[in-house]
Amino acid sequence: MDMLHRIIKSPITERVIMALIILNAVTLGLETSKTVTDNWGWLLHIVDRIVITVFVVELLGRIAIQRLAFFKDGWNIFDFLVVGITLIPVQATDSFTVLRALRVLRLMRLITIVPSLRRVVGGLIAALPGMGSIVLLIGLIYYVCAVMAVNLFGEDFPELFGTLGASLFTLFAVMTLEGWVDGVVKPVMVKFPYAWTFFIPFIIGTTFTILNLFIGIIVNAMQTEHEKEQKEERAAERDMLHDETGPMMRELVAMRQEIAALRKEVTSGSRQ
Amino acid sequence: MDMLHRIIKSPITERVIMALIILNAVTLGLETSKTVTDNWGWLLHIVDRIVITVFVVELLGRIAIQRLAFFKDGWNIFDFLVVGITLIPVQATDSFTVLRALRVLRLMRLITIVPSLRRVVGGLIAALPGMGSIVLLIGLIYYVCAVMAVNLFGEDFPELFGTLGASLFTLFAVMTLEGWVDGVVKPVMVKFPYAWTFFIPFIIGTTFTILNLFIGIIVNAMQTEHEKEQKEERAAERDMLHDETGPMMRELVAMRQEIAALRKEVTSGSRQ
Amino acid sequence: MDMLHRIIKSPITERVIMALIILNAVTLGLETSKTVTDNWGWLLHIVDRIVITVFVVELLGRIAIQRLAFFKDGWNIFDFLVVGITLIPVQATDSFTVLRALRVLRLMRLITIVPSLRRVVGGLIAALPGMGSIVLLIGLIYYVCAVMAVNLFGEDFPELFGTLGASLFTLFAVMTLEGWVDGVVKPVMVKFPYAWTFFIPFIIGTTFTILNLFIGIIVNAMQTEHEKEQKEERAAERDMLHDETGPMMRELVAMRQEIAALRKEVTSGSRQ
Amino acid sequence: MDMLHRIIKSPITERVIMALIILNAVTLGLETSKTVTDNWGWLLHIVDRIVITVFVVELLGRIAIQRLAFFKDGWNIFDFLVVGITLIPVQATDSFTVLRALRVLRLMRLITIVPSLRRVVGGLIAALPGMGSIVLLIGLIYYVCAVMAVNLFGEDFPELFGTLGASLFTLFAVMTLEGWVDGVVKPVMVKFPYAWTFFIPFIIGTTFTILNLFIGIIVNAMQTEHEKEQKEERAAERDMLHDETGPMMRELVAMRQEIAALRKEVTSGSRQ
Repeated sequence: MDMLHRIIKSPITERVIMALIILNAVTLGLETSKTVTDNWGWLLHIVDRIVITVFVVELLGRIAIQRLAFFKDGWNIFDFLVVGITLIPVQATDSFTVLRALRVLRLMRLITIVPSLRRVVGGLIAALPGMGSIVLLIGLIYYVCAVMAVNLFGEDFPELFGTLGASLFTLFAVMTLEGWVDGVVKPVMVKFPYAWTFFIPFIIGTTFTILNLFIGIIVNAMQTEHEKEQKEERAAERDMLHDETGPMMRELVAMRQEIAALRKEVTSGSRQ
Repeated sequence: MDMLHRIIKSPITERVIMALIILNAVTLGLETSKTVTDNWGWLLHIVDRIVITVFVVELLGRIAIQRLAFFKDGWNIFDFLVVGITLIPVQATDSFTVLRALRVLRLMRLITIVPSLRRVVGGLIAALPGMGSIVLLIGLIYYVCAVMAVNLFGEDFPELFGTLGASLFTLFAVMTLEGWVDGVVKPVMVKFPYAWTFFIPFIIGTTFTILNLFIGIIVNAMQTEHEKEQKEERAAERDMLHDETGPMMRELVAMRQEIAALRKEVTSGSRQ
Repeated sequence: MDMLHRIIKSPITERVIMALIILNAVTLGLETSKTVTDNWGWLLHIVDRIVITVFVVELLGRIAIQRLAFFKDGWNIFDFLVVGITLIPVQATDSFTVLRALRVLRLMRLITIVPSLRRVVGGLIAALPGMGSIVLLIGLIYYVCAVMAVNLFGEDFPELFGTLGASLFTLFAVMTLEGWVDGVVKPVMVKFPYAWTFFIPFIIGTTFTILNLFIGIIVNAMQTEHEKEQKEERAAERDMLHDETGPMMRELVAMRQEIAALRKEVTSGSRQ
Repeated sequence: MDMLHRIIKSPITERVIMALIILNAVTLGLETSKTVTDNWGWLLHIVDRIVITVFVVELLGRIAIQRLAFFKDGWNIFDFLVVGITLIPVQATDSFTVLRALRVLRLMRLITIVPSLRRVVGGLIAALPGMGSIVLLIGLIYYVCAVMAVNLFGEDFPELFGTLGASLFTLFAVMTLEGWVDGVVKPVMVKFPYAWTFFIPFIIGTTFTILNLFIGIIVNAMQTEHEKEQKEERAAERDMLHDETGPMMRELVAMRQEIAALRKEVTSGSRQ
């Protein structure tokens, strides 16, 4: 058990896993080519099997060590799911193309292995809660407008606004400003000349709100940075104050001793 | 009256309203589906009636308590309008599709109920006055260019620039950079080869100005944040100074007492 | 002369000019409509004449007062040009549609009249020199790529890259990301499969550089803001220091007097 | 050798090179026009030859002075490559259009000559390492999604997702939001109605990550700026503290002398 622990946690294992992910990224990329799979498919298949085996063994090793504690860490669950997905299509028939495609997700393990990537993703996820309210607001505006669009334009433009799903998709496209003129607003305005009173405020409103979302993230990021700096700065200021007040304090102490000595002399002098 | 006050202000009422808004969001979403309304329309209708009734009662209750003061708060007026709109189509015939569609706006009451949403929207609205001048500037450039475009290209491209309205719409699309090449500038340049001297500066100018608008918002947001921090920082600095000067002050006071004692002794000594 | 000075500088004149600009904005907007000009053209014409007359008189008045100093201020030159342009088509035949269209520019005088607009535009212009180097860099990359594109693709795609002008226009469109896929890169890649090695780096490079331009502006704006704040902060800190050291200083002065008094007594005592 | 050193390093040489680059920019621009090359081709050719000769001579001069140290500076290598590329097509036949087109890159020498441009480019390059992790993350998501897209949609949409290259190109276009609706997602959704579950998260995810990349750059740039300021600020604070504590220190010193004098008198008085 102790040896297993040492093997799993060793930096060599980490580096092997990292190398296997990169190798797997190449083989999965090559697998997309027909000519390559026809000629070297057997080799890619072997590499794939090796990678999966190592991943599974490493994961089982980590579970064996950490037991239930393993499932308390988000990154571990991520690894578990990503490797788990990989195992399904191997046992099932190859007709599940979607599951086959999801195998590629195992490359995402690079995030859990490379510390700097882990930190970046952790930072992105940490930024999410602070965005909660404004994302909820955007979602609310988006949903209300989508329902309204179905009621207003659904009958006449079934492809764009026929169902709530279609309406949500079309308005998402409008939000990205892609094809909103010729694809959406101009055709609708032929039938409803005042449709722009719906779309233009929607575009300005969502754009303004989304930009405020990012402004919020910027301000937040800078504040965090600033607070870190401020602690250092305060320590530096304290040092600086000490540098200034130190000599004064020493002077005061010396003076007090002087006065004390003087008092002693005066007292002894007056007693004489 | 006092009981009414207690009911309206109780957190349970708040939570009921919030739950009803979410329930209503679901039913209004389901109402967009033909199959659902055909089968469950009566249920959705009942839910709708209940929601409206509760909203109206709650609103009347609040008005009864606050009286005219009710209409002094922007959020109250918002609630009043949003619930008011809901009532019109119920009494009128169902042919008013626009008014029917506006019923969905009542979901916006979520903003007034959820405090964090209220704060976000309040923040967005509070950012508006600071943007006044630059929005006015963008509006001025936009309007001047629209009038110029009608005069320059209106006769030859009636669909794009025929009227002031069409011109304003086309230039708004150009501002969002959607289809400005193939939809607007290229066709115009076939007739007016120098049309790019109008459109390229317009694109660069408005993009630059709008980006400066957002830069202004960022700087503003950070400054507000900074000022809040600064107050805390100043308090901390004052504490720090106190920590440093406190001992010196105590030393000084002690010394003064020493000198005073000395003086007393000297005086009494010399009198002897 | 003194009276002229008083009239020109009076806030009433300013307000009249402002009102005339807004009135003129409305009439120029109405002039774009055929039906309005057919019925009310004579009225719009009269308003236009009045506005121009007032503008010219006010401008001449200002020149009469300031003389050559008038032309040393950028805003004055702006007013002069904008009003000057207005005068040309009035005297010339109406066939000069471009000059007619430029009349609308006189609404831009709103910028010179409204102080807050003036400040915003001044701020935008003041931000330009700091952007010099990076704009020059973008210009250089843009020009080099445009020349290269003519040499590489000019012969096969005369409409997109036939001349330097066409190439500059196409690459500007690519920079705004408008229609770069279907309009430019995909057709070119049919003939030159490796054309993406030119366009993708161009897109990433210019986008990155332009975004850095705006980052530069943000950082600059915040620094300016910060410096202003810092002065206030330093003053506040100085006050705070004074508040702390003031009592100590007073204590010291008092103590010195005490000692001086003591010394006097000792001296007189020892003389006795 | 010393004279060569003086010539190469003299500001006149620098200015000549700069002037030649600008002249060359004009001639290379003019060369793109058929009519100009037909009439003035010989002149442009001569200018080109002169520019290249001067560039080569200057470069050789710099190599002669610095020897191997020349190749240790990135800017020198840049100059070397840019001038080197220029020489190939002159010696080879003119059929190498790509190499001919690359001649234009020599205008990029303006960056190495103009100090402010050099600083800007240096700044952009310096910002790259700090972006490393997040760029790697974007690259990983991008690559994983591209491989998945080939597996999912490759067979049915060979033009968009047939090969890994095509898939990478299509997803890059989707990332820039250009034509993602009508060009990519809508056609794919006809065959795979749930394709939006792939594309919408891809768009939101990459947009969010790329925006965080730029937020990171902004925060970094501001921090660097802030640190510079902080040093100055600390120096200013130290000065301010000195201004305050200086008089107190002087007061203390004076008082100590007073006490010392007093003590001396007391001592001599008691001895009497």
